[in-house]
Amino acid sequence: MPLRFAEPAEGAYHFPLTIRHLLDGVVTKAGDQQIVYRDSGSYGYRDLVNRIGKLASLLNGLGAEQGQTVAVLDWDSNRYLEAYFAVPMMGAVLQMVNIRMTPAQIAYTLEKADAQILLVHRDFFPVIEEILPSLPQIKACVAIMDGGGDDLPSWAAGEYEQLAAAASPDYPFVDFDENALATIFFTTGTTGNPKGVCFSHRQLVLHTLAAAGSFGASSASPGLGVGDVYMPLTPMFHVHAWGLPYVATMLGLKQVYPGRYEPDMICHLRRQHGVTYSHCVPTVLRMVIDGARASDVDLGGWKMTIGGSALTAALCAEALALGMDVGTGYGMSETCPFIAKAARRTDEQWTDDDAQVTALSATTITVPLVSMQIVDDAMTPQPHDGLSRGELVLRAPWLTPCYLGDAKASDDLWRGGWLHTQDIATIDSEGRLSIRDRLKDVIKTGGEWLDSVQLEELVAMAAGVEEASVIAVPDEKWGERPLAVVVPKAGASLSLDIINDPLDRSISKGELPRYARLDRIEIIDRLPRTSVGKIDKKALRSRFA
Amino acid sequence: MPLRFAEPAEGAYHFPLTIRHLLDGVVTKAGDQQIVYRDSGSYGYRDLVNRIGKLASLLNGLGAEQGQTVAVLDWDSNRYLEAYFAVPMMGAVLQMVNIRMTPAQIAYTLEKADAQILLVHRDFFPVIEEILPSLPQIKACVAIMDGGGDDLPSWAAGEYEQLAAAASPDYPFVDFDENALATIFFTTGTTGNPKGVCFSHRQLVLHTLAAAGSFGASSASPGLGVGDVYMPLTPMFHVHAWGLPYVATMLGLKQVYPGRYEPDMICHLRRQHGVTYSHCVPTVLRMVIDGARASDVDLGGWKMTIGGSALTAALCAEALALGMDVGTGYGMSETCPFIAKAARRTDEQWTDDDAQVTALSATTITVPLVSMQIVDDAMTPQPHDGLSRGELVLRAPWLTPCYLGDAKASDDLWRGGWLHTQDIATIDSEGRLSIRDRLKDVIKTGGEWLDSVQLEELVAMAAGVEEASVIAVPDEKWGERPLAVVVPKAGASLSLDIINDPLDRSISKGELPRYARLDRIEIIDRLPRTSVGKIDKKALRSRFA
Repeated sequence: MPLRFAEPAEGAYHFPLTIRHLLDGVVTKAGDQQIVYRDSGSYGYRDLVNRIGKLASLLNGLGAEQGQTVAVLDWDSNRYLEAYFAVPMMGAVLQMVNIRMTPAQIAYTLEKADAQILLVHRDFFPVIEEILPSLPQIKACVAIMDGGGDDLPSWAAGEYEQLAAAASPDYPFVDFDENALATIFFTTGTTGNPKGVCFSHRQLVLHTLAAAGSFGASSASPGLGVGDVYMPLTPMFHVHAWGLPYVATMLGLKQVYPGRYEPDMICHLRRQHGVTYSHCVPTVLRMVIDGARASDVDLGGWKMTIGGSALTAALCAEALALGMDVGTGYGMSETCPFIAKAARRTDEQWTDDDAQVTALSATTITVPLVSMQIVDDAMTPQPHDGLSRGELVLRAPWLTPCYLGDAKASDDLWRGGWLHTQDIATIDSEGRLSIRDRLKDVIKTGGEWLDSVQLEELVAMAAGVEEASVIAVPDEKWGERPLAVVVPKAGASLSLDIINDPLDRSISKGELPRYARLDRIEIIDRLPRTSVGKIDKKALRSRFA
Repeated sequence: MPLRFAEPAEGAYHFPLTIRHLLDGVVTKAGDQQIVYRDSGSYGYRDLVNRIGKLASLLNGLGAEQGQTVAVLDWDSNRYLEAYFAVPMMGAVLQMVNIRMTPAQIAYTLEKADAQILLVHRDFFPVIEEILPSLPQIKACVAIMDGGGDDLPSWAAGEYEQLAAAASPDYPFVDFDENALATIFFTTGTTGNPKGVCFSHRQLVLHTLAAAGSFGASSASPGLGVGDVYMPLTPMFHVHAWGLPYVATMLGLKQVYPGRYEPDMICHLRRQHGVTYSHCVPTVLRMVIDGARASDVDLGGWKMTIGGSALTAALCAEALALGMDVGTGYGMSETCPFIAKAARRTDEQWTDDDAQVTALSATTITVPLVSMQIVDDAMTPQPHDGLSRGELVLRAPWLTPCYLGDAKASDDLWRGGWLHTQDIATIDSEGRLSIRDRLKDVIKTGGEWLDSVQLEELVAMAAGVEEASVIAVPDEKWGERPLAVVVPKAGASLSLDIINDPLDRSISKGELPRYARLDRIEIIDRLPRTSVGKIDKKALRSRFA
C-alpha cells in the first residue's frame, strides 16, 4: 500500500523550517532580555527584531534580493547577529568571511560565493580597498564605523548605523522553501584553495534545535539554558560561531558580543554582565585564563565548551582548578558544526580529579540525530572497543551537502554515503568518542600507526618544552618516522634524550610502542599557524620532510 | 532572482525526519542503559532496537504493511514503547486507543482509523470480544498476556512475547517521505463523537527535538536530561504520553514503565529505580502523594510536569513542601502536545513560597518554534498585559493538520491560519501565559466574562468542600449566571453563605467583581468525569441548566 498522508485543513499552517521561525515567540518570552556589544550599550529582543527588519530593508535598498550573496567582514558583534538572521530571512545567502585569510584568499572566496553586497568593519577597509578593483560583481558596500569617526570611504554606499536608522523595521519577510541556502563560508584546508561549505535553512534550524537539546540535556559539563548569559569566543565568521548565537537567540538568553578578542575586554564583560557560558579553542581559553589572572577576575562557574583542537589534560585541569566548567565539543566546518560533546553519563561517578580531566578532555556523546562509524579504507566499520582506530564518518541532518563548485572534492567528502571527517578516532563500548589524529597527520611507521597528537602530549611534558608538534617525515626503511618540532622555554636547552624522557616512561609502562621513540627533533622559535590558529603541519612537513 | 540551492554530492545522505532516526546513535551512547517494566525485569537499548525490529517483523508476518493502521490497547509498557517506534518505522500508522472510552466509542475510533491489526492487553479482551464482530476490516489481533497465563483467546493470531521470540530482529526499515502519517488517536470532545487527530513523522521528530530543548534548557522547574530516570504517569494512549517516551529514548535515558497506574507499584518503582522525572495530571499527583504517605516513600527531588487541568496552588504547595520539583506544562491533543512549560526566568528571583507556587502553577514559557496570540472573536490580537483575555491561537510545526475525515471541524480548528485552542488565556508583558478558562466554560453574565476556573478555586476553599465545579446556567436577566456544583466533605453541611465566604473576601479585596457572587449552588455526591479524568461540565450543564 502507499504511505498514508493527512488531508490538511485549508487554513492549516504549513510550517517551513526557515531561520525566520527561530525568532517565533522570542519577543513574547524574552521580554526585555538584553543583547550587549562591548561597552557600546545594549538593547532588548524587540529591538533586535526591529533591527533585523531594518537591516533587510537597507540591504534591499542597496539591491540585495533573494538568491544573492551578502558577505560580512566584522568582529563578533550584535551587527553580525542581525546579519545571521536578516540575510537568510530575506532569502539571500550570508557569507561569513574569514578575516584571517590573506586578501587574495578573501577575494577568491568572495568571487566563488558570488558576493554582491558587503558589510565591512573599518578594521578591514585596507583589505577591501586592495581587492575591490578585482571584484566587479560587487554592487554595494556598507561601512561599519563602530563609533570610530565619520571618515566614510568613497567606495561605501553608507554607514551601517546611519543606513539602519533611516530604514524601515517592517521588512515583508515571507515563508519559502526550507531547503534554500542560508549560509556559505570557506574552510582553510591545508591544501589548495579554501573550500566553500554551505547550509540550508532547514539544516540550520535542525542544528539549532538539536544543539539546544544536547546542551540543555547534559546534567554535567558545560550546558546552556534559560538563565545563562552567553558570549561567543569562537569567531562568528567560523562555522556560525559553532551555531550558538542561533541557540541563544531562540532561547531568548542575554547575549554579550565582545568584538575583537582582547583579554581585558573579555574579562571586563565577564565581570560586568555575569557571562556564564562561552565556547572557544584551547588557545583562547589560555588567553582568558592568563587575562583573568592579570586583572584578578574570578572565573568560577564559567561554563566553556572547548573545540577546534584537543584540550590538553594540563589546560583542562588548570581551568577546573579555577572553578570553570569545561568540556570538549566535536565538530568541523563541514558539520555545521555540532556532532558530539562531553557529558557525564548517568552511571558515571567521578571519584578523583584525574578521571574527571580525562572524561572532560577526551570523551563525548553524540548529539541527537547523529550517526557515527569508524571505518577502515574499505569503509568496513571497526569495533567500538576503545582501541580500534578508523576514520570517523558521519550522518546527520546538518552536514554540508557539497563543497561549492567542486564536484570532485564533494564526491570524495561523501563517498559511500557518509561524510568523511578525515579524523582518526576510537569509540569505546560505552559510546565515548576519542579523536586520535587527523588522517593526514597520522604517522605510518613500519606498517603501524602512531598518533601524532599522543606523541605531542608526551613531548610537551618534557622539561624545557614550551610547545611542540610531531609530524611524519619520509623514511627509506620504515616508510615514515615521527619528527618532533619543538619550541623551547626561554633559556631552556633541549636534547633528544630530554625530549624522549616522557616517551620512555610511557614505553616502559607499555602505554606506547617502542618504535615511537624519537630519533630526530628540530628546535624552532615559533610554530607556524593557520588562519584559524591551528598549528600548520603542512608548512612543517614541507620544511622538514 | 530565484532562491539558491546547493548541488549535493551524489553520495550526500538526504536525511528525512522520520521516527527511525530518533534511534540514531542511541545504542552507541546509551550502552547498557535499561528499559524497565514493572517487576518484570528490564533490558538495554540494544535489546530495545532488536525488539523494535522483531515487532515490525511479526506485524509484517500478520499482513501489516505501509499505509495501514496498527492499533494498540495496552497499559504503559515497554511493549507500547516498542510500538511507538516499530509501527511508524515500517511506514504504518500507530493508533493509540483510549482504553477509558466505552466499547462503542472504541469501535467507532477503530473503524474511523481503519485499524487492521490490533495489539491487545488481556485486561481489554472483554472489550475486544464485544466489538470484534462489528469490525470486519480487522485482519489480525495479537494478545498481550503480560505473564497472566496461556489462555490465548481463539480470535488471537498469537501472543506478543511468543510471536516476538520467533520473529527476526532484522526488519529492513527504509527511509521514506517524512510527511507520511505516523500516529493517530482520538480526543473525547465534550460534544459528539470522538475526533481523530494525526501527526506525521516530521511533526513528531520536530516535537521531540523541541521538547528536549525546552525541558533541557530550563534551569529551574522540572527539566529532563542526561542522568534522569524517566517514568510516564500520563497514559501512553493519551497524546504520545506527552511525547516524553520519544524524548527519553532519543536521549538514551533509563526508562521505567509502570503498567496500570497503581499507587503501590508507582511508589515501589520510584524507590527501586530512583525515578527522577515524570509527568501527570493533578489527579495522579494527588494519588502519588497519598500513596507515598501511606507507604512512607520519600518524594524529595522527584521532578514532575503537571498538565491536563489546572494545578491548584494548594496541591502545588503540598508537592513543593514534600521536596518535589513541580511545574505546569501546557498543551492538548491537537498540539502533539507541548506548547509551553513553567520555567523560572533569568531575571526572576523568588523571595517567598507564595510567589513560587504562583509561578509554578500558573506561568509558562513557549517551547521553541511556537507562536501564540490571544484573539477576540474577530481574530484581533489582544494586548499582552496580563489582563486582556482572548482565545489562545497557535502556530508550531507539530499541530494536527486536521481532524480525521471531518472537514468542517478541521476548517473550524484552523480558521484564519491559526490553530484555535478554545482556551481563554492572558499573556503578560514578560510572556507568562495563564490559561483562565475553556471557551465553552466561560460564564457570560451581564455582558462580562467570569472565569469558571477562578470561581472553582475559590469555592474549593470554602469550609466543608471536597470538590467543586462551576458552570454557566442560562438566566433571563443576565444571559448566564454561575452555578456551583459542590461535593461536600464527609459529614459537612453546606450553605450558599458558606460557599460564598471565600468569594466575598475576594470581592471585598477587589480581586473579583461583585456580580460573581453565587446565587445558586447544587450539592452532589460525585462529579461526573470524562474518560481522561476531567470533570464533565457538559454532563453538569445538561443536568442543571
